[in-house]
Amino acid sequence: MFTIKLNTEFAESFLPKESVESGIKKALSHLESLKNGSGAGGEMTGWVKLPTEIESSLLEDCKRIAISWRDKLDVVVVIGIGGSYLGAKCTLEALSPSFSPNGKKGFPHIVFAGCSLSEEYMSDLLDYLKDKSYGLVVISKSGTTIEPAIAFRLLRNNMIERFGKEETQKRVVTITDRNSALKKMSDINGYYSLPLPTNIGGRYSVLSAVGLLPISIAGFDIDSLIDGAKSAMDNLLRVEITNPALKYAVLRNLFYREGKKIEIFINYNPKLKFFGEWLKQLFGESEGKMGKGLFPASSEFTTDLHSLGQYIQEGERIMFETAIIIENKSVAVNIPNLEDNYDGLDYIVGKSIEEINKCAEEGTKKAHFSGGVPNISVSIDKLDEYNLGAIFYFFEVSCAISAYILGVNPFDQPGVEVYKKNLYKLLES
Amino acid sequence: MFTIKLNTEFAESFLPKESVESGIKKALSHLESLKNGSGAGGEMTGWVKLPTEIESSLLEDCKRIAISWRDKLDVVVVIGIGGSYLGAKCTLEALSPSFSPNGKKGFPHIVFAGCSLSEEYMSDLLDYLKDKSYGLVVISKSGTTIEPAIAFRLLRNNMIERFGKEETQKRVVTITDRNSALKKMSDINGYYSLPLPTNIGGRYSVLSAVGLLPISIAGFDIDSLIDGAKSAMDNLLRVEITNPALKYAVLRNLFYREGKKIEIFINYNPKLKFFGEWLKQLFGESEGKMGKGLFPASSEFTTDLHSLGQYIQEGERIMFETAIIIENKSVAVNIPNLEDNYDGLDYIVGKSIEEINKCAEEGTKKAHFSGGVPNISVSIDKLDEYNLGAIFYFFEVSCAISAYILGVNPFDQPGVEVYKKNLYKLLES
Repeated sequence: MFTIKLNTEFAESFLPKESVESGIKKALSHLESLKNGSGAGGEMTGWVKLPTEIESSLLEDCKRIAISWRDKLDVVVVIGIGGSYLGAKCTLEALSPSFSPNGKKGFPHIVFAGCSLSEEYMSDLLDYLKDKSYGLVVISKSGTTIEPAIAFRLLRNNMIERFGKEETQKRVVTITDRNSALKKMSDINGYYSLPLPTNIGGRYSVLSAVGLLPISIAGFDIDSLIDGAKSAMDNLLRVEITNPALKYAVLRNLFYREGKKIEIFINYNPKLKFFGEWLKQLFGESEGKMGKGLFPASSEFTTDLHSLGQYIQEGERIMFETAIIIENKSVAVNIPNLEDNYDGLDYIVGKSIEEINKCAEEGTKKAHFSGGVPNISVSIDKLDEYNLGAIFYFFEVSCAISAYILGVNPFDQPGVEVYKKNLYKLLES
Repeated sequence: MFTIKLNTEFAESFLPKESVESGIKKALSHLESLKNGSGAGGEMTGWVKLPTEIESSLLEDCKRIAISWRDKLDVVVVIGIGGSYLGAKCTLEALSPSFSPNGKKGFPHIVFAGCSLSEEYMSDLLDYLKDKSYGLVVISKSGTTIEPAIAFRLLRNNMIERFGKEETQKRVVTITDRNSALKKMSDINGYYSLPLPTNIGGRYSVLSAVGLLPISIAGFDIDSLIDGAKSAMDNLLRVEITNPALKYAVLRNLFYREGKKIEIFINYNPKLKFFGEWLKQLFGESEGKMGKGLFPASSEFTTDLHSLGQYIQEGERIMFETAIIIENKSVAVNIPNLEDNYDGLDYIVGKSIEEINKCAEEGTKKAHFSGGVPNISVSIDKLDEYNLGAIFYFFEVSCAISAYILGVNPFDQPGVEVYKKNLYKLLES
């Protein structure tokens, strides 16, 4: 069942009705191009039909590795940067306990490396691993991106020193392009390797081996993740004006044309904090080019209502909000009675915290709306693998269409290359 | 010694030289007003002379509580939201080990509560505390803000149930205004209470009891924190055109006038991630009013260079960057040799990771500069209590002056009240 709902009640009134309707009609052709790979960057649209085309042998492979590592390893270090870690990381944070966001209880802890050039982080990591049995998942399209390459050099040496070359073969899995330096090196050294499809870019790769293997090792249900994505695919590839992915893509472009410069992705659950990082990469890297694009920001409510909330309510009127809402909850904690009622909150005794949270959401929506900040919401039924699979897919499709409406290639990142070139030049000098 | 350095080499060339000079001259009077409390919100400038005026008995009190709790408690839950938790939280993340960002090894773990309305978070917290001996620090000016009040209701009940009323008296400390409901309640119940000064707002309170008590319990040196702030105060209250806090405040306003809409606070060390959240509150809440102000964002490099980096390099030209730089490092991890050099990185073997990180910083600065993004940097000597104290103070003074230049009151937050009012209305209906 497809549970994603798009609510635009507090957004559309900022826009002329005709512009929304005609925008959606015009965007139908972009969805068509995306589906048949005829748009800009069409060679990188392998993710579009991935939910149905993914090989069951890949899913089995991931689950097999997860099972064989489960009892053997305390920790699995996932080495990757950008699109090679954000999808798995945000899934883990969404589904794990708040005070141990490294995976399900009883499964190896997942930690990430190669996602910065912090010497302190690497030193702390080596210290943390000292008394632990660990494995490595190395994710890199080329294998030569400097951050993950440095981390892999260090951790591979450490592993060989501690466990020997033969045992290291059983503890390293690489995920890389079939023609990469990392693939060749894996073959020579006997490291198992999973494919990172050539036609899928990093930020659209969470439903490939890139996301699936770490998520599976962490104890979560990757079949359900893919099923959720399938439910979204069935609904969101329909070339119809009622398609919510299309409508969302059109609305954000209309706001951009009306002068909005920033889209703030908000949530009301701290477990979605990193989902905001995933969204920032997806949209920022897909659209931020040729001097164009909405600047993607993220914010956690209600905590940031006591911080950035002031700016949103009364600062420059240059933003709109897209809220990620979870409709239903899985636990029950009610407001308890207090003898003295010193805080004056006795009138909410017996309500659940989530009821108060929903009132905060309602109150915020109205306050920001009246303050001139349009508010879109994208809701899912509950926070689980199935719904995450669906919402990943929803935003991927929306983002690609949105970039087409904007007139940019959603699948390249020429600006990232400028930084890489400068860095290599400085290193070689 | 005052170690903060402001580098504007990659920023000033975007601006006419006269405008910087005349801007600084004009801003001198704002610093004067800040010092003598004659500017807007002057009644809330108690933080300006706090580093020298702080009572030594308060520091002793914090250290006494920290010592008495050290061996007795596994965990201390700090209840607070907005300015009541961001300062302590970002200090802890900056100074703790990467894989246990809850304080120094051998000291009680600090966790935070009352900073959201997430039922799941509270449920996870109660679960986490089940087999642990814990204490509570409750930080709230009024004591009636709904998020911390709900958390305190739940945790206080839980504590009384587990440890009894008498023992609870020894495990609860409140930090609140001397006339608040929470203070009265503390007196009646025999909870020790520290003052939250009436003339200091939340976002300027990290160097008061609000920050000092949690930081001290976590095992860090609050005397050194205050000493660092003193060194900054000695330098940054000088009404002189060479004052770097003044120059930074002027530059950001000039960029704003030139059409920049976003200031991105960046860092090259994941331990500063939460410092970015502190900055976002400080600037967003101080300046975002009357339809004005730069939108504050934050970003972590190099990780985000593989994400938002694309937008910064080639998206809309509406931002400038302010980088927080740590000059020196405390650990040593060098790039090791690799037999096969599959990744082609043998030419950096023997270099430290931090050297590569510095090259990344240099390369990024130049790339963003040439892409039309001005880049200011604020550097500290190393990441410790002393330098944190100094940089907190640097940004507080800069922010207040900047708001005066912008023509807004740096110390109120009328927009936050709109949300609170709407919430209470919905709860009462």
